Amino acid sequence: METAHGGIETPAFMPVGTQASVKAVSPEELEEIGAEIILANTYHLYLRPGHSLIRRLGGLHRFMHWSRPILTDSGGFQVYSLARLRTVSSDGVVFQSHIDGSRHFLGPEKAMEIQQALGSDIMMAFDECVPFPAAYDDVLDAVKRTTLWAERCAGCKEEGSGALFGIVQGGMFPDLRALSARELVALDFDGYALGGLSVGEDAATRLAVIQATRPFLPEDKPVYLMGVGTPADLVEAVCLGVDMFDCVMPTRNARNGTLFTSTGRVTIKNARYTDDDRPLDPNCGCYTCRHYSRAYLRHLFMARELLAYRLNTIHNLAYYIDLMRAVREALRTEQMALFRETFHQSQGINQKKEDT
Amino acid sequence: METAHGGIETPAFMPVGTQASVKAVSPEELEEIGAEIILANTYHLYLRPGHSLIRRLGGLHRFMHWSRPILTDSGGFQVYSLARLRTVSSDGVVFQSHIDGSRHFLGPEKAMEIQQALGSDIMMAFDECVPFPAAYDDVLDAVKRTTLWAERCAGCKEEGSGALFGIVQGGMFPDLRALSARELVALDFDGYALGGLSVGEDAATRLAVIQATRPFLPEDKPVYLMGVGTPADLVEAVCLGVDMFDCVMPTRNARNGTLFTSTGRVTIKNARYTDDDRPLDPNCGCYTCRHYSRAYLRHLFMARELLAYRLNTIHNLAYYIDLMRAVREALRTEQMALFRETFHQSQGINQKKEDT
Repeated sequence: METAHGGIETPAFMPVGTQASVKAVSPEELEEIGAEIILANTYHLYLRPGHSLIRRLGGLHRFMHWSRPILTDSGGFQVYSLARLRTVSSDGVVFQSHIDGSRHFLGPEKAMEIQQALGSDIMMAFDECVPFPAAYDDVLDAVKRTTLWAERCAGCKEEGSGALFGIVQGGMFPDLRALSARELVALDFDGYALGGLSVGEDAATRLAVIQATRPFLPEDKPVYLMGVGTPADLVEAVCLGVDMFDCVMPTRNARNGTLFTSTGRVTIKNARYTDDDRPLDPNCGCYTCRHYSRAYLRHLFMARELLAYRLNTIHNLAYYIDLMRAVREALRTEQMALFRETFHQSQGINQKKEDT
Repeated sequence: METAHGGIETPAFMPVGTQASVKAVSPEELEEIGAEIILANTYHLYLRPGHSLIRRLGGLHRFMHWSRPILTDSGGFQVYSLARLRTVSSDGVVFQSHIDGSRHFLGPEKAMEIQQALGSDIMMAFDECVPFPAAYDDVLDAVKRTTLWAERCAGCKEEGSGALFGIVQGGMFPDLRALSARELVALDFDGYALGGLSVGEDAATRLAVIQATRPFLPEDKPVYLMGVGTPADLVEAVCLGVDMFDCVMPTRNARNGTLFTSTGRVTIKNARYTDDDRPLDPNCGCYTCRHYSRAYLRHLFMARELLAYRLNTIHNLAYYIDLMRAVREALRTEQMALFRETFHQSQGINQKKEDT
């Protein structure tokens, strides 16, 4: 995939930079890890510091000192999951800020205004998320509205702005997912996202939704699974034809001391690591694994040192980015089935150790 | 000054790495800033993760991935300021940990055991701090005990271990400071620290104590003022013949959003910086000032992003380290009086702006 700020190899994982910062790491660290694109949140940046401010200061890339591509979400999911007192109409959503309770409005035109002000490389059309579980008719209404809003978003895309993706909704109903996909494809977007997932459904349901939707999306356009998931979720979704991912899991888990390794998860506060002089993951070449022992990482975490959050985040993001690199290699050499099998076998090893 | 881990140019400022980490920054960032030596806390590392663990893992330098010199304090000040239920005897101090209330003992032999286990380049003899204000006789007792303990510390210094400094006590009484200095100098330490300051006294009292003590310390040995202070305090103390400093002020203030610049302090949350596209300090070449605007630093701080603490800390430490570099240059060229005058004039500029 090509953007004004450089290319992206797919399948790709996008670290989440909610508030114009990927929590605990610097842009240079993201580059060293190999991140080719990050995600920023339209809802959060609209509320604080404001998209007009960021535009005045030269756009989001310059503001946050990141020169590679940025994907912005639509704000739809955050309005649904964070904001209070939502009122949805055909124009958009009136809501209260989760920060100070102030009243705001987001709709298709506003979401595009914000994303274009930020200077996004890949924008998302404004969508309506529904709760899980939801009644069929409510989901159908949301699908219809999402299509109308997507068309209005396409209509206010300015010359020279970034790519625009439509977001497929439809809850857990395969036929509504197919309907949403068909309606959006008819509008010919630059790519398609699967939204409204990671809202409480189990992994099997999620995979079934992906499987039911993917055939209705074009083979030659990128497909982006929003907000998912564990390393295993990503491997499975790639096998179903997904090209792009974002998730707070590697960064949030890092700050909670749960670390992803080639042999499964490590809970770094576990007493077994007190004396452990080995790198966190001997198969990882990240800054954290090159220079620090498990014993030191445990000490930093127990002592609540700020460096703990950084070192853990660097490793977890490197794990996700490296996983995607290995997946691309497996796809290139047509070894994806073997890769998938080996990957799943490796993942339980550490849990068994920690449980003993 | 030379140590087993390299040389230190004086006057020097030492960033504080209390728990085997200078809060919010990496060793590489400290090197880029130009820090030639850091301080680590004997009391904290003894309690968590324990000096025996650090020795087993190859010493503090390897544990925390820092290859330049490390100075360790004696633990005396922390036992006095942090620990609970202290009982002081001629052997040392029984106290309760501020972390979990567990009972511990620190005395001259123990403090040396810990510092040598850590692999410290510059160790401090175990001392007794007194409250401020304190009665003359109590301070005299503490001075006498500090001398006896210093002698015992010198007695258990192992072959090949780091330098050992004696700590001058004596409260705010010039004659007791002189007594303490004379007694320690008779024991011929590698350097001398001024302890028991920054305990609530005003700057004038502190400067008077330094002025009263310095003549009793040798010209050819380093003098280290412990736990002091503001940039102006450092400039004044250098003029009185002090060579080394440590203080949590640059790092702690950074995390509170108070930033030191060439024109005085900046309170970064101030609304005046919302739209301010300029670097924090146009006269600073640190990573933060090279790549980020005041507007972005304010945004990160308001949004409580972890990157805020790092960027602010990098700048404040760079400010202190650069100030010492400028002071060394002024001393070399015999322009210290002029430097001091210019420095004090520059410091108020920003307050006047922020107050308007």
